Amino acid sequence: MPERIRVTVWNEFRHEKSNEKVRKLYPKGIHHTLAAHLKKQAGFTVKTATLDEPEQGLPDKLINSTDVLLWWGHQAHGEVADSLVDKLQSRVLAGMGLIVLHSGHHSKVFRRLMGTTCNLRWREANEKERIWVVEPSHPIARGLGEYFEIPHAEMYGERFDIPTPDKVVFLSWFEGGEVFRSGCTWQRGHGRIFYFRPGHETYPIYHHPDVLQVLTNAVRWAAPERYFEHSCPNPAPLEAIRG
Amino acid sequence: MPERIRVTVWNEFRHEKSNEKVRKLYPKGIHHTLAAHLKKQAGFTVKTATLDEPEQGLPDKLINSTDVLLWWGHQAHGEVADSLVDKLQSRVLAGMGLIVLHSGHHSKVFRRLMGTTCNLRWREANEKERIWVVEPSHPIARGLGEYFEIPHAEMYGERFDIPTPDKVVFLSWFEGGEVFRSGCTWQRGHGRIFYFRPGHETYPIYHHPDVLQVLTNAVRWAAPERYFEHSCPNPAPLEAIRG
Amino acid sequence: MPERIRVTVWNEFRHEKSNEKVRKLYPKGIHHTLAAHLKKQAGFTVKTATLDEPEQGLPDKLINSTDVLLWWGHQAHGEVADSLVDKLQSRVLAGMGLIVLHSGHHSKVFRRLMGTTCNLRWREANEKERIWVVEPSHPIARGLGEYFEIPHAEMYGERFDIPTPDKVVFLSWFEGGEVFRSGCTWQRGHGRIFYFRPGHETYPIYHHPDVLQVLTNAVRWAAPERYFEHSCPNPAPLEAIRG
Amino acid sequence: MPERIRVTVWNEFRHEKSNEKVRKLYPKGIHHTLAAHLKKQAGFTVKTATLDEPEQGLPDKLINSTDVLLWWGHQAHGEVADSLVDKLQSRVLAGMGLIVLHSGHHSKVFRRLMGTTCNLRWREANEKERIWVVEPSHPIARGLGEYFEIPHAEMYGERFDIPTPDKVVFLSWFEGGEVFRSGCTWQRGHGRIFYFRPGHETYPIYHHPDVLQVLTNAVRWAAPERYFEHSCPNPAPLEAIRG
Repeated sequence: MPERIRVTVWNEFRHEKSNEKVRKLYPKGIHHTLAAHLKKQAGFTVKTATLDEPEQGLPDKLINSTDVLLWWGHQAHGEVADSLVDKLQSRVLAGMGLIVLHSGHHSKVFRRLMGTTCNLRWREANEKERIWVVEPSHPIARGLGEYFEIPHAEMYGERFDIPTPDKVVFLSWFEGGEVFRSGCTWQRGHGRIFYFRPGHETYPIYHHPDVLQVLTNAVRWAAPERYFEHSCPNPAPLEAIRG
Repeated sequence: MPERIRVTVWNEFRHEKSNEKVRKLYPKGIHHTLAAHLKKQAGFTVKTATLDEPEQGLPDKLINSTDVLLWWGHQAHGEVADSLVDKLQSRVLAGMGLIVLHSGHHSKVFRRLMGTTCNLRWREANEKERIWVVEPSHPIARGLGEYFEIPHAEMYGERFDIPTPDKVVFLSWFEGGEVFRSGCTWQRGHGRIFYFRPGHETYPIYHHPDVLQVLTNAVRWAAPERYFEHSCPNPAPLEAIRG
Repeated sequence: MPERIRVTVWNEFRHEKSNEKVRKLYPKGIHHTLAAHLKKQAGFTVKTATLDEPEQGLPDKLINSTDVLLWWGHQAHGEVADSLVDKLQSRVLAGMGLIVLHSGHHSKVFRRLMGTTCNLRWREANEKERIWVVEPSHPIARGLGEYFEIPHAEMYGERFDIPTPDKVVFLSWFEGGEVFRSGCTWQRGHGRIFYFRPGHETYPIYHHPDVLQVLTNAVRWAAPERYFEHSCPNPAPLEAIRG
Repeated sequence: MPERIRVTVWNEFRHEKSNEKVRKLYPKGIHHTLAAHLKKQAGFTVKTATLDEPEQGLPDKLINSTDVLLWWGHQAHGEVADSLVDKLQSRVLAGMGLIVLHSGHHSKVFRRLMGTTCNLRWREANEKERIWVVEPSHPIARGLGEYFEIPHAEMYGERFDIPTPDKVVFLSWFEGGEVFRSGCTWQRGHGRIFYFRPGHETYPIYHHPDVLQVLTNAVRWAAPERYFEHSCPNPAPLEAIRG
């Protein structure tokens, strides 16, 4: 692992341009808010990337020097090039950590790695969310109490169509009556993946100290120690074959 | 679940046409050998399908009336249409069972559902394989002893790049010195998936009674009780929101 | 598997004797209510057993002819003999299914099989519980909708100190603000274990049709196909050792 | 986590006293060999403890200042006091790491935490073992190649009666024809558990550099960040109950 974890925050960056309410919360975009936090709180080396930049923000050089990628997308999932998704999948399988945020559950890269629809139940009704820490000793839960609350959130409810997670770190309670597996981990290839539910664009969720703490923790957890080659070796026998 | 499980055996069916040795073992193709067994031993309703048939053997009507699909492919994985893979993935997520055989580890449909490279170590050296039953109480192991042997097999060795299986039912020992997770289960969406290693085209492996027993067991295990719709519902709150 | 599944419902049977409210709900005891249901709905062969009977209700002959054991206990966990717990553990590891109900989370036999404290958060406040079906295609969820409700329940909340379940079938939402993994499966040895949260003695929960449906489903799911011996064999080599 | 990980190596320490061959390999006992290595290679704070010391080597003060406990036992498992096992289980559930070595699969503490018999197949025939690294990106596999070999080993073979591990890091191939899940991880409560197969008393296995590397890695992986209290809280509602 490089001495300082190299983080890239990717953001679709469309809502912020078209919606006044979102712009007020995230004047330079969600990516800037998250990047500023990750630099300041944790001292990571952080870059940002957005959909409308050249190569959709992720030229090979940047992909290949990213240890942990955060992904926020919502309305433009379909615009992300399949060839970029191929590269990101390949980089995750080689070891890069991937943190998928909120509506990123429907991103191409997450669905590619999960193999499922990643469908869920949802509602925008300004309701309270209480996020319970189910695995308090997991590194992603470091520094949190028994639960934390988000006063106004979009609701995501079960069934969430994902493969059984390695660990469910957080479970959400919603005022309107639903529950959700809000923090889930998987390994795919040599890469660690964390899905984290909170984060709607019209609420100040990425200014919430517990949410930011989780993201710092998750970057540390997801950063690889090293990278691995993909191969299909065809070696000679290690022991004599009697035939 | 329909009263009789509806099975489709899909085979690439190329080796049998070009290679005399394979043709001698499977004169009408691997699919015919497997289908005949599954009809006779278990009374399933069995159809076959091959790559060079119209719609690559799998028109929508057949896909949508298949409860369990067996998949054998090797040299022509790349020829399988992505649009067909989309349909098969969707059908598995809705509940159809999928049994992936041997070199099918590199098929598009298996890699799509796993999200990983599915790479492995391999060797053709005519060596002995001993398949240990690690989970004797799993339905797929019904009727087997502690292990069974295949006198001459192609070797597949670890690391096998797959997501951690729900259950590892079989582990293989190879004469040349390797080991392999030879029988693995996963659930994706509502569908059950079983990968089963044995089955090279130049050995009479699909005439081996224990191998055939495993396939019968696996079909019964993978058959769904019912099918589910994919959706992303947007319901009203179940409880009052105080706002 | 015997043609008809042999079920034993074990109940501590103390609250019903000392508490008028409980006696009104379950005049002959919780065990009688559950046994009558399981006989009638599913045609199982059902026996009952209670703590104050000889051999605490479970002589060897009954243990060894039980395919699935349901366990309800609360105030007298400590009175159950360790030697009985040894036998029950051994029978589960050989294949017997075990369904642990509600306050049975703290029973000796459940803690023995889990290896953890099985602690949880709890409250008696007459609150509403909504039980979400997270794995609708699991056999234990057969016949249920997206969720079902219990109008007045004791609350159990996370963190629930259990090993990561094989599958979390149900998640509960509580009116008072908590969430809980209410339906969890594990395999230990050759036995299948299901923990099911609903069931407080002062509410008519074991008269609720969805609760009863879950228990019928769970018995079918947990019943073994066969039983296995415990052993530590010391066999000769299968292959020549060169030394 | 304390700045330096506090490791205790517990050894039954009987074979070394009664068997000349064992004494030659481990003149001061297996615990001394392991402790010296862990101090030297990794700079851990290491203590040792043996069965015939007062309080079986593990007074409360030592238990409560141990971050990772290594456990080697074989012929005297039955002599370990149940009250000590209670304390060790409790400490693991609070966060202490536990590394169980070789014949420790039958120790009381391991069986207590697993809930199963931990039975396996075994043979002493001086045979070769090749240990495959199935999860090369797991922290416990740091610094290893694709596999490593032990020229003369006692054989342990499947079926190994354990709960499905969180991760199987190592799989063994044995010259005599068996396979084994040789490196397995679980979490119980807040503690991390690693079982590692190699280590018979009559072979110089604890002088093997790869075996020692694994143990160093495993201590780092198993050390907790903090400890947790066990409790069963009974809190007031967080939301109003309408009743």
